[in-house]
Amino acid sequence: MIYSKHVFICTNQRPEGAAKPSCGETHGMALVTEFKKLIKEKGLSIEIRAQKTGCLDVCDFGPALVVYPDGVFYQNVQLADVAEIVNEHLVGNKVVQRLVLDKK
Amino acid sequence: MIYSKHVFICTNQRPEGAAKPSCGETHGMALVTEFKKLIKEKGLSIEIRAQKTGCLDVCDFGPALVVYPDGVFYQNVQLADVAEIVNEHLVGNKVVQRLVLDKK
Repeated sequence: MIYSKHVFICTNQRPEGAAKPSCGETHGMALVTEFKKLIKEKGLSIEIRAQKTGCLDVCDFGPALVVYPDGVFYQNVQLADVAEIVNEHLVGNKVVQRLVLDKK
Repeated sequence: MIYSKHVFICTNQRPEGAAKPSCGETHGMALVTEFKKLIKEKGLSIEIRAQKTGCLDVCDFGPALVVYPDGVFYQNVQLADVAEIVNEHLVGNKVVQRLVLDKK
């Protein structure tokens, strides 16, 4: 496993008036930047990676991201939630239950 | 786990003459399309997802992709390799050793 935690943050932007909602490029990139900043501050950039990704197909629950290898999807993620996900999940290995998306 | 296998295919395109190589948007999207086609043909679109993603930071080994939750990175993936990855790994759960990228 190259990364102990690999975070994929949706930055998909649909056109105005599209049938489905989208996570949004501006919001998604702000999340990516915040994840990268906090991971770097902790000196964990070698083992933990956060990056932008295309549509995760959980559009109704966005802004969304997924943490692998755990396969945990988070929904409605705001900038203020990033530190908690980094500290609790990426570092502490404890899932942030209040943000978990379960499609089933 | 929403997907039993989740394939992230790099479509990052750097400008001509950039210091680092990049996997490339055209090649990456061709891989995405082929993965989606074969997964759909097998009726596995609900449980297996293939999608485009940003830079995986394994630029020297591209075109690259990663299969999660396994955390297996594949390097130098060509269109002709997709069927083997789908059949062997995504369906058969056997890693395609000849394409595995191990950065260490």
